[in-house]
Amino acid sequence: MPDLDDVSAAAGTVPATGGVGIVTPRDFVHDQPFTFQSGQSLPGFTLRYETYGRLNETRDNVIVICHALSGDHHCAGRHSPDDRKPGWWDNLIGPGRAVDTDKFFVVCANCLGGCVGSTGPSSLNPATGRPYGISFPFVTIRDMVRSQKLLLDHLGVAALHAVIGGSMGGMQVLQWGIEYPGFVRRLLAMATTSREGAQAIAFNEVGRQAIMQDPAWNHGDYPKDGGPRTGLAIARMMAHITYVSDASMDRKFGRRKKADANRDAYTFDVQFEVESYLRHQGQSFINRFDANSYLYITRALDQFDLAQAYGSLEAAFAPVQAETLVVGFTSDWLFPPEQNRTIALALLRCGKRATYAELETDLGHDSFLLESEDLYTLVRSFLERPTAVEVDFNI
Amino acid sequence: MPDLDDVSAAAGTVPATGGVGIVTPRDFVHDQPFTFQSGQSLPGFTLRYETYGRLNETRDNVIVICHALSGDHHCAGRHSPDDRKPGWWDNLIGPGRAVDTDKFFVVCANCLGGCVGSTGPSSLNPATGRPYGISFPFVTIRDMVRSQKLLLDHLGVAALHAVIGGSMGGMQVLQWGIEYPGFVRRLLAMATTSREGAQAIAFNEVGRQAIMQDPAWNHGDYPKDGGPRTGLAIARMMAHITYVSDASMDRKFGRRKKADANRDAYTFDVQFEVESYLRHQGQSFINRFDANSYLYITRALDQFDLAQAYGSLEAAFAPVQAETLVVGFTSDWLFPPEQNRTIALALLRCGKRATYAELETDLGHDSFLLESEDLYTLVRSFLERPTAVEVDFNI
Repeated sequence: MPDLDDVSAAAGTVPATGGVGIVTPRDFVHDQPFTFQSGQSLPGFTLRYETYGRLNETRDNVIVICHALSGDHHCAGRHSPDDRKPGWWDNLIGPGRAVDTDKFFVVCANCLGGCVGSTGPSSLNPATGRPYGISFPFVTIRDMVRSQKLLLDHLGVAALHAVIGGSMGGMQVLQWGIEYPGFVRRLLAMATTSREGAQAIAFNEVGRQAIMQDPAWNHGDYPKDGGPRTGLAIARMMAHITYVSDASMDRKFGRRKKADANRDAYTFDVQFEVESYLRHQGQSFINRFDANSYLYITRALDQFDLAQAYGSLEAAFAPVQAETLVVGFTSDWLFPPEQNRTIALALLRCGKRATYAELETDLGHDSFLLESEDLYTLVRSFLERPTAVEVDFNI
Repeated sequence: MPDLDDVSAAAGTVPATGGVGIVTPRDFVHDQPFTFQSGQSLPGFTLRYETYGRLNETRDNVIVICHALSGDHHCAGRHSPDDRKPGWWDNLIGPGRAVDTDKFFVVCANCLGGCVGSTGPSSLNPATGRPYGISFPFVTIRDMVRSQKLLLDHLGVAALHAVIGGSMGGMQVLQWGIEYPGFVRRLLAMATTSREGAQAIAFNEVGRQAIMQDPAWNHGDYPKDGGPRTGLAIARMMAHITYVSDASMDRKFGRRKKADANRDAYTFDVQFEVESYLRHQGQSFINRFDANSYLYITRALDQFDLAQAYGSLEAAFAPVQAETLVVGFTSDWLFPPEQNRTIALALLRCGKRATYAELETDLGHDSFLLESEDLYTLVRSFLERPTAVEVDFNI
């Protein structure tokens, strides 16, 4: 177990105005066999992670951030002063921010099966010297959580002040509460679901087909900088539509034409700003994401159904000890408010401490990532108010 | 101009229990130059069409049906007794049905730019002996309507009792009322919009990219039975999701697994019924639709914006003489109720006779195609009640 200073230095946090400053990701190498829920196993794995803030003496001021499908471990700060953008949840996390790194030690890891440093299908299989491709074990949300627990054990964390995540991150939050009840004081799940529904599976399937039907996919066997870039871009373009809302797209783009577009209205080239924006989303995604990871992670989403896995939602939540806050967003049509409310209601039916908050927004599913004083207030007060939850320091 | 008997025999209507019976499509060949809105032109064109019922003596008991993106002229009856399914709006059209073919002479044509008999990008260019491909002129909703008017002139139609359509068909309905105000008594537009919004354009663009990025597209130059079948299937799978609703998919499929699927939950093969259903939608579509037509028709949808085309919605509707009924469906998220209500409100602001009806349904955009006694009642009463609209028989 690394000592406190080592842990706090892990992310190389440098104080900076308005944020956690310059951060350096680190790798946690687990060199023991890891068996996935599917029964498949790996001789070990790596999780790339970042931390912000300092672990306290009792090693329990820890907040775990779980990322969504296309996210990664880099949720706050910058890797270099030249970075154009900070981590994906930088608006929420930092000194004095809603997730206050002056008080909490924040940990975020790229998920198992991912492609931004953690072991996934694009990692080299030591047995063959080639990327795993689709010989990589199938990954579930539970596998992601179990691997994160090993990282926290490695960091010497005694208990979690909270686990926070939106979308797929919210699924992990719920799984954390079920899997390690004595370890977690607070669960904060946003824009998520306890059960991937038919429409969400359908969109995932179209994305997977776009990838797998691309000849460059080649049954998952492609070079690092090649692969089904066309299929992955199309999957991302489509998925992106589901992350926003009709109203927000209309406000942001409406029917505006590209200023530099061919003035001829009759073309299949980019004509509307929204087309240009989507193509950009697709193109930038293929430079940072692995197509096989996209297959694995969307399949993990599809598989997620707590009621099915445990018999009922009440049975799933029976072990939960943490206090839970679920946040739904009115314009989220990927994981609509009802699906979020359902989680809190099931927890309440089990006699758990749970609250549901619904934020009025027209920004769609991605609302949880966007600036919102209302969200910051909710998060801050949930994290900072006392909770009666006792954690078991011996776990 | 063909005589009455010729016209009524056109579709070879054979009475049959519960429908219009066996019908035979016919081709209208317009052998004069036709100039598109884009300024491009063709030396002539063909529209494939069907008719049901008999034209009356005054040649004004005519109802034009306008089809949606993936529809065609075959909206009622069967082409052969062995046909597994009747035309796409057979539930609405027939003797004694809401669109009563005992009273009305119903005409439906495959749209210009289509691929089911009418001239479109898959038609042979007489100048080259090869399919037009993307050298075909760009088509607009107005072009579709203008070409239909030429067909009706050919049939000797004096006035229209009504024009009816949903989705893209509804756009044509509105355009009919604007373009030929003295010719049309009633407009019935369902599940439509006066303006394709950013989200709808975005989905169209993803579909087009799936097609155009498929190497088999080859800049639109592909053999009749080849082409970008993979891309077209993906476009259709995605579009199909937008035609239904989260609730209807959950009811129809939920998370049920395919009975004959590999029982292994860990696979990228079909696992959920909804995946199998979508793949089937994609596969059956590529056997009946041309990828270039898909590009052209989605572009026609994108271009549709009456307010932009005429300066304002009120200016667009200024010439309208017909009485209008607009029907929105609560669960339609492609062209939501508000977009339908907007049409009726703009007509009312112009002092036109317009009504908006909203039907409660959880079946999504495709609700207009599905069995609904409420819809039948609305349609029947709108078509059969007297209207004060005078039509100009000299047009």
